[in-house]
Amino acid sequence: MAQNSLTQTITAKTMADLWAGLKMQGPRVHCITNSVVQNLTANTLLAVGAVPSMSTDAHEIADFSRSAHALLVNLGTLDAERRHAIATAIPVMAESGKAWVLDPVMIDRAPHRLAYARDLLALNPAIIRANQAETEALGPSHGVRAISGVRDLVETAQGRITLAHGHAYGSMITGGGCALSAIMAALAAVTDNAALAAATGFAGYGIAQDIAAREAEGPGSFAVRLLDELANLTPERLAYDLSMRIEDYP
Amino acid sequence: MAQNSLTQTITAKTMADLWAGLKMQGPRVHCITNSVVQNLTANTLLAVGAVPSMSTDAHEIADFSRSAHALLVNLGTLDAERRHAIATAIPVMAESGKAWVLDPVMIDRAPHRLAYARDLLALNPAIIRANQAETEALGPSHGVRAISGVRDLVETAQGRITLAHGHAYGSMITGGGCALSAIMAALAAVTDNAALAAATGFAGYGIAQDIAAREAEGPGSFAVRLLDELANLTPERLAYDLSMRIEDYP
Amino acid sequence: MAQNSLTQTITAKTMADLWAGLKMQGPRVHCITNSVVQNLTANTLLAVGAVPSMSTDAHEIADFSRSAHALLVNLGTLDAERRHAIATAIPVMAESGKAWVLDPVMIDRAPHRLAYARDLLALNPAIIRANQAETEALGPSHGVRAISGVRDLVETAQGRITLAHGHAYGSMITGGGCALSAIMAALAAVTDNAALAAATGFAGYGIAQDIAAREAEGPGSFAVRLLDELANLTPERLAYDLSMRIEDYP
Repeated sequence: MAQNSLTQTITAKTMADLWAGLKMQGPRVHCITNSVVQNLTANTLLAVGAVPSMSTDAHEIADFSRSAHALLVNLGTLDAERRHAIATAIPVMAESGKAWVLDPVMIDRAPHRLAYARDLLALNPAIIRANQAETEALGPSHGVRAISGVRDLVETAQGRITLAHGHAYGSMITGGGCALSAIMAALAAVTDNAALAAATGFAGYGIAQDIAAREAEGPGSFAVRLLDELANLTPERLAYDLSMRIEDYP
Repeated sequence: MAQNSLTQTITAKTMADLWAGLKMQGPRVHCITNSVVQNLTANTLLAVGAVPSMSTDAHEIADFSRSAHALLVNLGTLDAERRHAIATAIPVMAESGKAWVLDPVMIDRAPHRLAYARDLLALNPAIIRANQAETEALGPSHGVRAISGVRDLVETAQGRITLAHGHAYGSMITGGGCALSAIMAALAAVTDNAALAAATGFAGYGIAQDIAAREAEGPGSFAVRLLDELANLTPERLAYDLSMRIEDYP
Repeated sequence: MAQNSLTQTITAKTMADLWAGLKMQGPRVHCITNSVVQNLTANTLLAVGAVPSMSTDAHEIADFSRSAHALLVNLGTLDAERRHAIATAIPVMAESGKAWVLDPVMIDRAPHRLAYARDLLALNPAIIRANQAETEALGPSHGVRAISGVRDLVETAQGRITLAHGHAYGSMITGGGCALSAIMAALAAVTDNAALAAATGFAGYGIAQDIAAREAEGPGSFAVRLLDELANLTPERLAYDLSMRIEDYP
């Protein structure tokens, strides 16, 4: 088995340790994200122990980026101010070797946004978190690909990780995927292993969904319980509930 | 009784069928709406089976409008970008014969916004959903008027429909009316009968409120349960619980 | 004891009366606040009986300010439109002797925002509501200082009030502090005594947190119950649960 294969580095133990590290270190995550989901994204980050900030103002974006440990770039409700903020914030992260996560929301619906997302790929996101349709629209990329679906996938040059968590209610909450991308950014602030961050994000968010769905009576109460369970999820429980399969590429 | 009178076309059966059609067809509803309520509006649309999008960007608004089945135009937190998006999106809907719904939020508080709302009336919204004060400020219009209140009203050239659903908690949730307008837009994507869409929107949203209020302990838990009940409301239950009176104009 | 000392004017009785007055008068509070928390702020104001509005548009801000009874200025997600709205709205309030509350969100993270906040101090906010780090960054000011923390503080030229309410979950809800600032603005619309408004805001919001935390299972259900308890909190309960200490400066 090759040194540093996915099978070696991504295990229930390394994932549980990363989840514990997230809660302990409480990284600051700056989010350039759409106005629809800012609130849920911030609450999700707080629930997992991270510290969110959300400014997109030209006067402030450099300061917020510099003092953050990771960056989320989400393309929903994209506008001139957000484009400018993205152009400023990504180089700030790159200079200091900090990770950024790309969430190319709905690029399959808007050609202009798709072209913009493809340009961003050249700036080396650590993780691209998207659904199947968005991933297909985007085309090839270098970063780790975290693809949400009935089965969640993490694809890297080294191999492929499949996770079997989550509930149908998850797709009835607006911004659920966006919040997950933010969790992955928070995790990428605590480890250099982007595939580990992506897999742990899927696991933590998916297992919290599994638990939340048990007593939910609809998407409203599911969303409330999901925040509760994200905050309550221990590293031990994450490792215990984990349903994951790893394929190393030869 | 005249052909196509309200009494003939708007019945518990046609309303239940429309509600079922909404859940089955899952129309895409593009929402140009205010930043305060974008999240609740999106979650409400997802709960009733529709697919929301919210971009207001000049580069994207035409694409999103074209691929949507109906449009919501809500005048809260109106700004230059939203005005431009509205001016682009409405003609796109008109060209392809798709419906748009106007929600003239708080026009009774801001003369500039009122003037703007009156200009929009010339672009033929299928439904104007507002409260009593906003409806009075707006003045006469051609579209179906859906007027929220202790008793909800649908007014058309043919007659008047009164519905007796909903709870006082409903007015303690910001964006409740805005979310209802979005439901009406989703329904108007599934039928050409705007009065039927408006009445069914009031019925579905109001009956879900009736059920949600029973175990709510305040406006917070009411809002959560309302999303649950909107998702769980079956066409049969909508028809069974319906409390409606129709007056055909002679 | 000096005439009008804090001990004389700020009592369980005057606070309960102010809370009752808020529910009875239902003041309109215009909020220039960040996009992350607009929804929670609006729902919080509705829960305590006030009427929120949120426009920041140049065409409307004067109208909304004029018809409001108090103003909230929150510096989160500050942008050009919000800066313009703030510059217009504050003089409107000043002209008619109405109060405005400053919430200098995260000024300790962004020097440009800090400089802007310091400029605003010259425009005499009735209350400055912030956490300890923000208060220290801001430096000296004339208005009443409402400082959130494990113990909440109200500092005035006359003395100092300490309140012992609230729960750790409170800091896991994004916009909790912002919503509290809005409550203080609503209370400042009902009394000329800014210290009384600040202390009553801390008491009402903190006691509602105490009650909400008892049955919460995490930050999600806590946030829902908090809205319920804010709506349900009676003046009598506020006075009965109050845990407060007042020190008059000599």
